[in-house]
Amino acid sequence: MDIGIVGLGLIGGCLGLDFKALGHRVYGVARRSETCTQALSRQMVDTASSDFAALRPCEVVFICTPIATLVPVVADLAQVLAPGTIVTDVGSVKAAVVDKATRHWPQFVGGHPMSGKSEAGLEAAEPGIFRDRPYVITPLPQTDPTAIKTVEQLAQQLGSQLYRCSPAAHDRAVAWISHLPVMVSASLISAALQEPDPAVLTLAQQLASSGFRDTSRVGGGNPELGLMMAQYNRDAVLRSLRQYQQAIATTLTQIEAQDWPALSQQLQAAHQARPHFVPD
Amino acid sequence: MDIGIVGLGLIGGCLGLDFKALGHRVYGVARRSETCTQALSRQMVDTASSDFAALRPCEVVFICTPIATLVPVVADLAQVLAPGTIVTDVGSVKAAVVDKATRHWPQFVGGHPMSGKSEAGLEAAEPGIFRDRPYVITPLPQTDPTAIKTVEQLAQQLGSQLYRCSPAAHDRAVAWISHLPVMVSASLISAALQEPDPAVLTLAQQLASSGFRDTSRVGGGNPELGLMMAQYNRDAVLRSLRQYQQAIATTLTQIEAQDWPALSQQLQAAHQARPHFVPD
Repeated sequence: MDIGIVGLGLIGGCLGLDFKALGHRVYGVARRSETCTQALSRQMVDTASSDFAALRPCEVVFICTPIATLVPVVADLAQVLAPGTIVTDVGSVKAAVVDKATRHWPQFVGGHPMSGKSEAGLEAAEPGIFRDRPYVITPLPQTDPTAIKTVEQLAQQLGSQLYRCSPAAHDRAVAWISHLPVMVSASLISAALQEPDPAVLTLAQQLASSGFRDTSRVGGGNPELGLMMAQYNRDAVLRSLRQYQQAIATTLTQIEAQDWPALSQQLQAAHQARPHFVPD
Repeated sequence: MDIGIVGLGLIGGCLGLDFKALGHRVYGVARRSETCTQALSRQMVDTASSDFAALRPCEVVFICTPIATLVPVVADLAQVLAPGTIVTDVGSVKAAVVDKATRHWPQFVGGHPMSGKSEAGLEAAEPGIFRDRPYVITPLPQTDPTAIKTVEQLAQQLGSQLYRCSPAAHDRAVAWISHLPVMVSASLISAALQEPDPAVLTLAQQLASSGFRDTSRVGGGNPELGLMMAQYNRDAVLRSLRQYQQAIATTLTQIEAQDWPALSQQLQAAHQARPHFVPD
């Protein structure tokens, strides 16, 4: 199959490596010519260009640019692609993208391969990162079933676990498991920094260990990613964050009132529920 | 030196192994006779008994029982120990213990070796778990300097990093880095369980990955430990939790108001501060 990839960063580079290994012909597009040269020399793409028109032969185009540029890229692609070309994206929020993109290009299918690495950029790309990882497809009711099927088949070729749901359901689910944890975790660090006694703050910094390390990890990560989650998944993040605020208020009230049976029950429920999210 | 250990669980067992390896003579006391037999056969102690009177020859006694029993154990020991015997504990909260224990036994020195394992009990004991880990000594103004020095020297022999502070400073510091993270993390799981749409909850459970795994780890751990932290370090936990509630409210307001510069600054500050707690 002739497959286009717009944006040759980590995900675009990884898709190129895997699709080429699967025998597809890969057309890369990147803004910077050095990126094109690098992608060609690392054999991530068969052709590379800074011009969207180079994607005209493609049957499917994956957009792997930052979320803010997804819809504008679809609008630009709509000027040059052959009718019937399937366009999909890899963005981590869907409601803000899928409706608008579909208006520009009816053969658009929202997608979210939930793979990644802590490093960004083409240099970090490697084969096989989608294997055994979720790949969520988020069609609209009017999305062409053949287009959905084509994207799902490609995701299956990557070895991913396929899920299909509405953009809203996707965004609410990832708010719980990905975006809310960032806010929860960053707020832990922010709160600790408010410690009024400098000696206690220093001691806390000296004594911090695995518990603080794990709980603060995603909140202390890339600030631009956290901001992007809040901006583009605002409604779902607010919805989760309000529920979380309730949970914190409940815990505070239980400890204030010394209602140990209630706190115990709460902690028991959390202990029992966690393996349903992340089996050990 | 003749060293007593009351309570032969994980920490008591580990102390026995290390002190014997250092050439000390170790006197173990456990309630159950099977524990005594096991500690003897694993060569964690030189003598084992269920009777506190067996500790009369000791120069220093480490109390390694659960926090709820620390003060009663000191009161019982006060009936049998030779005058001048130094008594110390290994509890993870200090203000609730040190004052009362000192009233029963003036030669009491509060201590907290910050080592552990996910498994509990004597079976999990192994040598060297205190090496390169913090060991906090929390004397009162009236505590005998010679007693403090003796406990500190033993902690140093274990290879620990020594810290000395007041019980209150200890409790506030561990509230930030150990007890608050448990409440923050458990509340994440509790909040997610409140998702009203069963399909979204199922999807969240299917998609949860490393971010949710790390942020929920300590909150999904042993519920009894979490309860104990809230009960015995109540004031410091409430103090941290109120500050945390403020941080969550601030984040919520920033996202509601779409105040992206403020949220960005918050996330940047968390990103920059985290390595001061847990260097990567």
